[in-house]
Amino acid sequence: MYKILKEEGRAKRAELSTVHGTIQTPVFMNVGTSAAIKGAVSTMDLQQIKTQVELSNTYHLHLRPGDELIKEMGGLQKFMVWDKPILTDSGGFQVFSLAKLRKIKEEGVYFSSHIDGRRIFMGPEESMQIQSNLASTIAMGFDECPSSVADRSYVQASVDRTARWLLRCKRKMEELNSKEDTINKHQLLFGINQGAIYKDIRIEHAKKISEMNLDGYAVGGLAVGETHEQMYEILDEVVPCLPRNKPVYLMGVGTPANILEGVERGVDFFDCVYPSRNGRHGHVYTNQGHLNLFNAQYKTDASPIEEGCQCPACRHYSRAYIHHLFKAKEMLAMRLCVLHNLYFYNTMMEEIREALDEGRFASYKQAKLDGLLQNS
Amino acid sequence: MYKILKEEGRAKRAELSTVHGTIQTPVFMNVGTSAAIKGAVSTMDLQQIKTQVELSNTYHLHLRPGDELIKEMGGLQKFMVWDKPILTDSGGFQVFSLAKLRKIKEEGVYFSSHIDGRRIFMGPEESMQIQSNLASTIAMGFDECPSSVADRSYVQASVDRTARWLLRCKRKMEELNSKEDTINKHQLLFGINQGAIYKDIRIEHAKKISEMNLDGYAVGGLAVGETHEQMYEILDEVVPCLPRNKPVYLMGVGTPANILEGVERGVDFFDCVYPSRNGRHGHVYTNQGHLNLFNAQYKTDASPIEEGCQCPACRHYSRAYIHHLFKAKEMLAMRLCVLHNLYFYNTMMEEIREALDEGRFASYKQAKLDGLLQNS
Repeated sequence: MYKILKEEGRAKRAELSTVHGTIQTPVFMNVGTSAAIKGAVSTMDLQQIKTQVELSNTYHLHLRPGDELIKEMGGLQKFMVWDKPILTDSGGFQVFSLAKLRKIKEEGVYFSSHIDGRRIFMGPEESMQIQSNLASTIAMGFDECPSSVADRSYVQASVDRTARWLLRCKRKMEELNSKEDTINKHQLLFGINQGAIYKDIRIEHAKKISEMNLDGYAVGGLAVGETHEQMYEILDEVVPCLPRNKPVYLMGVGTPANILEGVERGVDFFDCVYPSRNGRHGHVYTNQGHLNLFNAQYKTDASPIEEGCQCPACRHYSRAYIHHLFKAKEMLAMRLCVLHNLYFYNTMMEEIREALDEGRFASYKQAKLDGLLQNS
Repeated sequence: MYKILKEEGRAKRAELSTVHGTIQTPVFMNVGTSAAIKGAVSTMDLQQIKTQVELSNTYHLHLRPGDELIKEMGGLQKFMVWDKPILTDSGGFQVFSLAKLRKIKEEGVYFSSHIDGRRIFMGPEESMQIQSNLASTIAMGFDECPSSVADRSYVQASVDRTARWLLRCKRKMEELNSKEDTINKHQLLFGINQGAIYKDIRIEHAKKISEMNLDGYAVGGLAVGETHEQMYEILDEVVPCLPRNKPVYLMGVGTPANILEGVERGVDFFDCVYPSRNGRHGHVYTNQGHLNLFNAQYKTDASPIEEGCQCPACRHYSRAYIHHLFKAKEMLAMRLCVLHNLYFYNTMMEEIREALDEGRFASYKQAKLDGLLQNS
């Protein structure tokens, strides 16, 4: 199912076969939190920008429109019209970052919806049931994501519980995958490593979950306050403790530089809201550094965001036009910049895979970083 | 240049050849006020929904980004990447509906920008210069649009001045079209009939401007307060006073029913913000009446907005998905509904042309109205 095609140092070029198609890794998943990419980007648009995997959020979809409704509609793929792989996160992160009046117990978490305040309970079994209803390709284990500044004893207790939760997730997923009315009976389950910035706790936890023989493993709770250097050090320690023959997913990461460093350390999967969020604010990526299209210097700039870029924005529209659209508060501005940024990320992943295929990742990485840092 | 292909009663099936291509009429122009269709619809999207003519606003583009900038960028077609015809209105209507601290003189209008308050002067020559800079296919004469409740003496003085302004527009346009550095030396000029609800004033004004031998004639100042019946009565009186061998444009109109009635009375060109504005609010048109996609009844409705519709929204997405997108405040909801509504209007115009071609407009019109009125 997961096959390493090429290696360079710790970096892996691999593929993961799923019931919804084969994913070429390293891959950047495009975030569509509520079953839509923000910025008026449709799944038809995603077909034009090299997207391999769409990522949606269990917490958001459980609250609205409801996972049972999506199951009734034939699952998330059918609902949002996307026949390629989808990864759903477990809801754990959002329960801890968005929900209110949270109470953590051994059985799971009691919290209030950030939309209408209603009380909700979510534990490992509920998260698996929801993700099974959504019928995503890859489900994530239900975890607690402790703050990177939480104290040691809190974090130790938390990851111990997250490990117990993961076993319950695995049992529940097996049960759901064998049920008659389950839409995707081949749903995969990835476990999530936690432990804040305590390397020994993370390592012990990584070893423990590695024994559970899951379909893949994620490193969670990074890029939430610690420095980039701390993140890279944790990856240096943790990734080698995860099974080499399973995909590794670095959650919520990150900048193009973060991704290049992650790939070097053996990461296969990435996701981040940066390209879409930045695009909506006029920040666009180029291989000569980033631009802010709100700046007056682009008022009469007839060139595309990036010369030679084949994205739907650059193939047609000028910086001057997009600058005008932002000034005139036209939504089209956001859409064009989100399309460009996602295409930029997806193309970078394609370049990374090619570089790995040809055994020149190290030099590719250095050249890419040199270009990216020009304007920063 | 303008050729009537078929007639049925007063209704005309015609075509207008322009330097940017031939326009098949009756036609509905798609409104992109600030050089963009609201709802994140791009000019690439317009290619998919049968749009023939894009309409932009002189007043808005003069204020932002500035018509001289657009001229520097090669004109509006190049700026917004649309190689088919564009009609620009003259700014008259917006000066009277949007601008503040307005002073009307014989030479033109002094007013304050609704964006930053700066004082601006616009007269017939300025409007023509701006539209020449924009390099649209069809420019509109600079007019005053008196309120439909203005008293008789005010309206009489106003239309007399509008007629004098139109002569100045014509002279200025001839001068601009013969200048070396003009982008579109074949820019067409349509004159605008005004007169509020005073039929005799409108008729006298229509006759006067008809003598100016312009490229086309518009009826302005309707659909701004009077009843639909009053509008139809005015068209009954005014359109026969305009040259039969020139295109007639009913400005800012309207509902599908208004358009059918307008075609019957000899109108060729229409424009209106209804389809895009309604779409952004979840109101969509179908041949079985309109729907409000915010309604809870569409929560689990797997059918498209309209069965059999070939628009980009209906070819892929369900009412349930679009309902969810509106509830989740995802911009994609607006985009899909605007695309559907514009496609609905553009397709209706295509049906109208086919019906006229085949001499069955009267029965088509009745059947269409019966369908449209089902839910209203």
